[in-house]
Amino acid sequence: MTYCVGLLVDRGLVFMSDTRTNAGIDNISTVLKLKTWEVPGERFICLLSAGNLATTQSTISLLEERLVAPSEREPAILKQPSMFQTARLVGETLREVIQCSTGPQAQSPDPMFSGSFILGGQIKGSRPRLFNIYAEGNFVEAGDDNPFFQIGEHKYGRPIIIRTYDRTMSLEDCAKLLLVSFDSTLKSNLSVGLPLDLQFYETDSLRAGFRHRFTKDDPYYRQISGGWSDALKRAFDDLPAFDPSTAEGVPLSAKGIPRPVMLEDASVV
Amino acid sequence: MTYCVGLLVDRGLVFMSDTRTNAGIDNISTVLKLKTWEVPGERFICLLSAGNLATTQSTISLLEERLVAPSEREPAILKQPSMFQTARLVGETLREVIQCSTGPQAQSPDPMFSGSFILGGQIKGSRPRLFNIYAEGNFVEAGDDNPFFQIGEHKYGRPIIIRTYDRTMSLEDCAKLLLVSFDSTLKSNLSVGLPLDLQFYETDSLRAGFRHRFTKDDPYYRQISGGWSDALKRAFDDLPAFDPSTAEGVPLSAKGIPRPVMLEDASVV
Repeated sequence: MTYCVGLLVDRGLVFMSDTRTNAGIDNISTVLKLKTWEVPGERFICLLSAGNLATTQSTISLLEERLVAPSEREPAILKQPSMFQTARLVGETLREVIQCSTGPQAQSPDPMFSGSFILGGQIKGSRPRLFNIYAEGNFVEAGDDNPFFQIGEHKYGRPIIIRTYDRTMSLEDCAKLLLVSFDSTLKSNLSVGLPLDLQFYETDSLRAGFRHRFTKDDPYYRQISGGWSDALKRAFDDLPAFDPSTAEGVPLSAKGIPRPVMLEDASVV
Repeated sequence: MTYCVGLLVDRGLVFMSDTRTNAGIDNISTVLKLKTWEVPGERFICLLSAGNLATTQSTISLLEERLVAPSEREPAILKQPSMFQTARLVGETLREVIQCSTGPQAQSPDPMFSGSFILGGQIKGSRPRLFNIYAEGNFVEAGDDNPFFQIGEHKYGRPIIIRTYDRTMSLEDCAKLLLVSFDSTLKSNLSVGLPLDLQFYETDSLRAGFRHRFTKDDPYYRQISGGWSDALKRAFDDLPAFDPSTAEGVPLSAKGIPRPVMLEDASVV
């Protein structure tokens, strides 16, 4: 499994990925899932990958081989006129790799070879854009109503993003938010693992922003991981206490819901 | 889908379940998933169910039919000498129902008919016990290291329980914790829905404790749901800010991780 998030805010894009890959629970290693390309002053592209590692690595290699051999007929990832066309290229390449693994006769792609990507970036003359690319090769774009994408093991870390995300956040606050989200996931699921890779992209900078790898010994990661448990406990304590004696509403049994079976009921028959 | 939690604390047991059931996303209704039995002064039993509704309802009906017809050979849920035997009875009945739906020839049970239970309660002379019962009919018991069970859509609501649970909590604080956990799940997943059913069991009381149904208009539920978003934001703001300029560690590219592809690299070939 994997956990990757791409966030779109007014000030730019923030990407984070874990680095754990596993083939069975007893075969674990570390792999880079956050890949970037840039043409300074012209474009910046970041790709986060989840799913079958052979599939996503092949897709990226194909995108790069096409990049370094511009004489080939296939388009190169740095040669697309727009982020939309870039997403289409990534999606088509991904679908091609999955179909190739599944075999040409197969009616539908084998889920074993499946993969997906989050693609974000900016090309000069256009705004920063963020896409979620599916195994089928199609994709959706982030907007005001869905300003972030998660791929992989997304459930544990979703509630905190939903409750805290704000499009006016700074990139630094996004990094803090994503660390909390990843830490919640790390604490719940063995298939997501440290270190974590972070990538900033500042709107209109047209070059890769700050990049950092958080290891388990990273002082800031340790502050957040420990501090969040304490902060959550304080937040929890601050909520009003539940008082059964003042709880409104009638007992369940008076609402047409069967009341608990009593011995008397049981012994009637 | 479903979300149910059973918590074991020193002072007793706390159970919560949602009430949404669906056959496809366009066929949703409300159903009781929290079932209790008691023999005041002798035993209290609570059963939370997840999975195929036909399977879990059949299982409960069988447990009850056996209860009301004590002359049958099969044992009754209120007649077991221990909570362990009760768990075994529930597990066996569940497996029987699934096998019956799957068909006698099948090598393994059809996952479509699968179901699972959380069983908790106390029988006089023994301590309160909590079990997680699987579709295969086997089960595990809660202990100091795993003091709670979740079934159904458990991921969204797990981090807050992991970070906040404490075995010395009051039952009221458990209710507050579970409301937060359920609210996080409700906000993330359509297949879990209000109202929420709550059941307390106080250690050695040997009778059903406080029971309440939280609807969307329940004043306390609204306080928690709104208050938790604010409390989380405050907790988040209280965490130290991320400052890239002081982030320790060297840039990724110096650690043997490929640095971003630059135009110069691309244009070499």
